[in-house]
Amino acid sequence: MNTYAKRTIWRKENNPNIIQVIDQRRLPHELIIVDIHTCQEIVDAIKDMTVRGAPLIGATAGYGVMLACIEASKNQNSFVYFEKCINELRASRPTAINLFWAIERQLDALKEGKNWQEKIEIASKIADQIIEDDIEVCRLIGVAGLPILEKISQNKKGEVVNILTHCNAGRLGCIEWGTISSPIYQAHQNGMKVHVWVDETRPRNQGANLTAWELTQAGVPHTVIVDNAGGHLMQHGMVDVVFVGTDRTTRMGDVANKIGTYLKALAAFDNQIPFYVALPSTTIDWTIKNGLTEIPIEERSQDEVKYIYGWNGTSLEKVLLTPITSKASNYGFDVTPARLITGLMTERGICAANEEGLLSLFPEYK
Amino acid sequence: MNTYAKRTIWRKENNPNIIQVIDQRRLPHELIIVDIHTCQEIVDAIKDMTVRGAPLIGATAGYGVMLACIEASKNQNSFVYFEKCINELRASRPTAINLFWAIERQLDALKEGKNWQEKIEIASKIADQIIEDDIEVCRLIGVAGLPILEKISQNKKGEVVNILTHCNAGRLGCIEWGTISSPIYQAHQNGMKVHVWVDETRPRNQGANLTAWELTQAGVPHTVIVDNAGGHLMQHGMVDVVFVGTDRTTRMGDVANKIGTYLKALAAFDNQIPFYVALPSTTIDWTIKNGLTEIPIEERSQDEVKYIYGWNGTSLEKVLLTPITSKASNYGFDVTPARLITGLMTERGICAANEEGLLSLFPEYK
Repeated sequence: MNTYAKRTIWRKENNPNIIQVIDQRRLPHELIIVDIHTCQEIVDAIKDMTVRGAPLIGATAGYGVMLACIEASKNQNSFVYFEKCINELRASRPTAINLFWAIERQLDALKEGKNWQEKIEIASKIADQIIEDDIEVCRLIGVAGLPILEKISQNKKGEVVNILTHCNAGRLGCIEWGTISSPIYQAHQNGMKVHVWVDETRPRNQGANLTAWELTQAGVPHTVIVDNAGGHLMQHGMVDVVFVGTDRTTRMGDVANKIGTYLKALAAFDNQIPFYVALPSTTIDWTIKNGLTEIPIEERSQDEVKYIYGWNGTSLEKVLLTPITSKASNYGFDVTPARLITGLMTERGICAANEEGLLSLFPEYK
Repeated sequence: MNTYAKRTIWRKENNPNIIQVIDQRRLPHELIIVDIHTCQEIVDAIKDMTVRGAPLIGATAGYGVMLACIEASKNQNSFVYFEKCINELRASRPTAINLFWAIERQLDALKEGKNWQEKIEIASKIADQIIEDDIEVCRLIGVAGLPILEKISQNKKGEVVNILTHCNAGRLGCIEWGTISSPIYQAHQNGMKVHVWVDETRPRNQGANLTAWELTQAGVPHTVIVDNAGGHLMQHGMVDVVFVGTDRTTRMGDVANKIGTYLKALAAFDNQIPFYVALPSTTIDWTIKNGLTEIPIEERSQDEVKYIYGWNGTSLEKVLLTPITSKASNYGFDVTPARLITGLMTERGICAANEEGLLSLFPEYK
């Protein structure tokens, strides 16, 4: 448990075609590294949430395309096989825009490959590049977001800055730095007093499992709360700013993020607390406008609500939380309308959550 | 598990000075009846949430005063002993107005008792009366609330009426009928199609544990959801009305209820969905106005957030949900401002959530 895995995905030493990731389903109780050998194993790792978080899903899918090329090159019906792999990759997490983005980036580049050997080399290079790009993007999001915290800290005369966050948009959802965690880590490194309220984020508890774990690793003071608590804390002045991530952002600034984000945005708005969303521009879907009507919301297994995994002292155990016969429903995301969002933190700076704001930073999408 | 305990508290057959209650911490997995012999055991049962829910806490405290009289009558320093018991009863759940109300009702009546024997008889009679009164009050709340559901059902031409609820304000929180469940049960008995979205209600999961269990017992269709899900369901027209209970209501209509209620009120308001609070008038604290500044909010053990109890297949097991070293915070309630509440359902009918509305039904408090 003391091993600090700096990155969340990497090639295995001495065998660059085996991909290694942290099994995020075992955190915070066990740090287990998983070897991934095939594109199907990439699909499984995304589907069963061994890896999660929009940027990391994109990076993982990047290696998925590389492995699909390697496998296709050995297959009699190489093009049919390759297409099947890509379709399965696409279907692994329907809400994750980074998934599609990474696949398209690969497919675009692969057009230049004249044979499978060339395609493998291209896909390999692009997959690595997706990772390096993400690290730089996250660092820059931190540079953009840091002044928000600095201003609050100044206004509070150096007293602790209290940040509330939902789910995990930290380095575990990315490669390094993370998105919402990047300004927090940079502030903490600079010696600013920060404290993070960590929503546990039912049903999969990514806040309690992942955000709390990585903040512990980084030495950042934090307190875990149930998802119900944020409104009360905001009513009583215990939250200075809300930072959340996003799985998909529309051209107009609507944000699809982990289920429950919308409720925190409402509470922040009602209490005049700034609410910022951190996003690499790859999570912007420039083709859609209305998040509520246009973003498909993934429905997951009811067992994620009915059962929970926890540490019984010696191992991870699954326990039942409801009457055995009761049904449960499990929508993975909700959409926070742009009107509730103070600003978007991107790798090119901060902008208003609307089309004008986004286009001011990304004029190439005009 | 098939036993349907009609009431939640009663005197033991053949020994009326032993009080029996359902151990609500074991539901929905085991139905266990607990014998309570002393006032201290009453205090413990309230404190450790063997019993919970404002009206049931009041009823339990009523028997607590009776047991305190019995014990005091056998004690050398009977008045000192009795006062100590009452103080401990008062301190058992600081947010529960029914607790104070039941104790005061007993103490008022006890003034008529000339000796401990008379006091025991009075306390015994009043304790039983508190229970009968609660049952009638809950029935009447149902009579008041039923037309809300009937109107929605008519507007939907008999299609299913979807009610969202938080925590447990069903019969398990009362004696029979419950508060928010009373109109639902009455509608269901009348043949109306109803379906209840049950917030699991972390950290103690009273929704998943208790509301889902009692709706199962009553045969009412329901679906358990995480506390994060309600906003999404409301955004997509899947909720027709929100019904919640209250632990304490101010003269101006502010409502203190289980932590997270405020977030659901915000979402209902944002989506123009009616939000009703069911309350026996005993939960109104006529002495206070501003819920946010005047209602003390109980802080409970961080372990209720860090650990959860679930059924491992053979027994209830406690598992850890966070890094072992991470801190957690655990506020028990939040306050929903009156401005977000469509109406209050009381035993005397429905009124607006403000002083004028409440006084129109309860003019004796003018």
